[in-house]
Amino acid sequence: MKLMLVGFGVVGQGLVEILRDKRAELESRYGFRAQVVAVATRSKGTLYHPDGLNLDWLLDAAQRGSLALYPPVDGVIRDEGILTLIRRVEADVLVEVSPTNLHTGQPALSYCLAAFDSGKHVVLANKGPVAVGYDELLEHAGQAGKLLRFEGTVMAGTPSIRLAMQALRGCVIAEARGILNGTTNYILTQMESGMSYADALAQAQQLGYAEADPAGDVDGWDAAGKLLILARALFNIPLKMDDLEVKGISGISLDDVKAAQAAGERWKLIARITPEGGSVGPVRVPLSSPLAAVSGATNAVTYVTDLLGEVTLVGSGAGRLQTGFGLLSDLLDIHERTG
Amino acid sequence: MKLMLVGFGVVGQGLVEILRDKRAELESRYGFRAQVVAVATRSKGTLYHPDGLNLDWLLDAAQRGSLALYPPVDGVIRDEGILTLIRRVEADVLVEVSPTNLHTGQPALSYCLAAFDSGKHVVLANKGPVAVGYDELLEHAGQAGKLLRFEGTVMAGTPSIRLAMQALRGCVIAEARGILNGTTNYILTQMESGMSYADALAQAQQLGYAEADPAGDVDGWDAAGKLLILARALFNIPLKMDDLEVKGISGISLDDVKAAQAAGERWKLIARITPEGGSVGPVRVPLSSPLAAVSGATNAVTYVTDLLGEVTLVGSGAGRLQTGFGLLSDLLDIHERTG
Repeated sequence: MKLMLVGFGVVGQGLVEILRDKRAELESRYGFRAQVVAVATRSKGTLYHPDGLNLDWLLDAAQRGSLALYPPVDGVIRDEGILTLIRRVEADVLVEVSPTNLHTGQPALSYCLAAFDSGKHVVLANKGPVAVGYDELLEHAGQAGKLLRFEGTVMAGTPSIRLAMQALRGCVIAEARGILNGTTNYILTQMESGMSYADALAQAQQLGYAEADPAGDVDGWDAAGKLLILARALFNIPLKMDDLEVKGISGISLDDVKAAQAAGERWKLIARITPEGGSVGPVRVPLSSPLAAVSGATNAVTYVTDLLGEVTLVGSGAGRLQTGFGLLSDLLDIHERTG
Repeated sequence: MKLMLVGFGVVGQGLVEILRDKRAELESRYGFRAQVVAVATRSKGTLYHPDGLNLDWLLDAAQRGSLALYPPVDGVIRDEGILTLIRRVEADVLVEVSPTNLHTGQPALSYCLAAFDSGKHVVLANKGPVAVGYDELLEHAGQAGKLLRFEGTVMAGTPSIRLAMQALRGCVIAEARGILNGTTNYILTQMESGMSYADALAQAQQLGYAEADPAGDVDGWDAAGKLLILARALFNIPLKMDDLEVKGISGISLDDVKAAQAAGERWKLIARITPEGGSVGPVRVPLSSPLAAVSGATNAVTYVTDLLGEVTLVGSGAGRLQTGFGLLSDLLDIHERTG
């Protein structure tokens, strides 16, 4: 399977590390062999080699800050425009891991459409195109007879999407509710030990959970973006951000946290979606709920189903290898379905 | 898809109810149409109709205690020997839901082998054959080019097997630990409210969680049987009951339960398996563990993986429709892979 990556930050590098370190295991267990033939970034340049790029050299160049540092081997093609390169590259799958834009999905959405139109499957960890452009993606995928996969967009590689869309087939899912943002859950957990909101946020930033500008996390927009994706994956309803009620955690005080603890409850930023609509906001969850037990940067989702009742999946919601695995699991799924 | 059921107790009837009530939904969403052509039981007789049995009549007869009460329609064939019928029936899948024998797997194991040998896929909710005869099952399945599926044997239909074997592909699972028996978890949960072991057991029996002879549950053998299945599904290691350390919950006193509560812990009957071996026994679990939050008759399993860290699935571990769904999800999987 020949891969082209668009974007090559933490997650893209995580995938490449996995492909390098698990090469023998993936081949022997699943008959899966992958080659990275192209990497395209906006800030670090682009690389293309029809026979495949050397993964060690690629990671080394990226970690030193520029794909220009990839050794000058025969046949390597550099610094093409991203869209031109997508159309030109002979690859089976486009792996979209460029930065997320939850308003327009761009420029990643155009990259994905160009990939389908040039005969490639598309796998994303980038939420934007799926949250904003699902119909267009499916339409182009259908026309090309190619597959769209996006496990890594919700709860990193913890298989929230695959659980709902594959393992629970035969059930009707009536509702999903979960803790879909690790930063806010980490902050709320730290506040339960008496830490102030500001200190907990600073610590989350130090640990790399929260961005320098934490608004996307603490104001609920990251969770809301994931909810738009679940709305499509579970119910195929075309919600927009404006359709959701979104409230963050910045209004939760230490006193609020203590009051909940005294009542045997925990504040959680709960994202909830039904076929009627969705919301993100802080909720006092009773300790009897499986979501109450989810501490730190961990994520969780509960699916409410007709035949099984409630099914809850708890796991990592971020991380280099965790999100890299989300991409890998989609690649293995495509390998199995097309191999 | 033509089905033959062996066994027609609660779980088999649950599957037939689902097939009846979801007929239109299963056809429109998955292109799945199933027909029950035969039902074979040891105590209620057998039925076979090459054109399919009427599901309402079938459920009615079973609920009235005997398949002999199925109406005398043209073409129906009654009271054959089970093995003879398995070999004779034209069906795509044998659904094995007869009573479990964790020592020999029999007679169900012979039924499954005969099904493979006569060209049928096999789907089980019956733990015995998978726990005891996995090698034989796989060998006959392989020779026949047919599929073996057993989602319903562990945590009913909550997709513990499909999560490990399909959704987590690409990860190496190093360990599984979980609460795989609902009866014991219900008893331990009730004891935390001050109820005695004997009273909690009586209540579990009243609610239908525990058998009249509760030894299989409270002494850990039910969980151990599921562990043998996970040992195969996750690690393909051929463990026997004698290889496991198995201890039940009957030695846990109210004082033990209170002492754990005072220390911020909960007693749980934890089944644990690694490639080196397995055990079932009561463990004091800290409240920070996702397994500590699992109350009542609910089940849960945590997979410890190389790329994702810990992934925990929480859901129902028993029930008519829940286990029926486990069977249905296997049938849909076979439908997808062979359709």
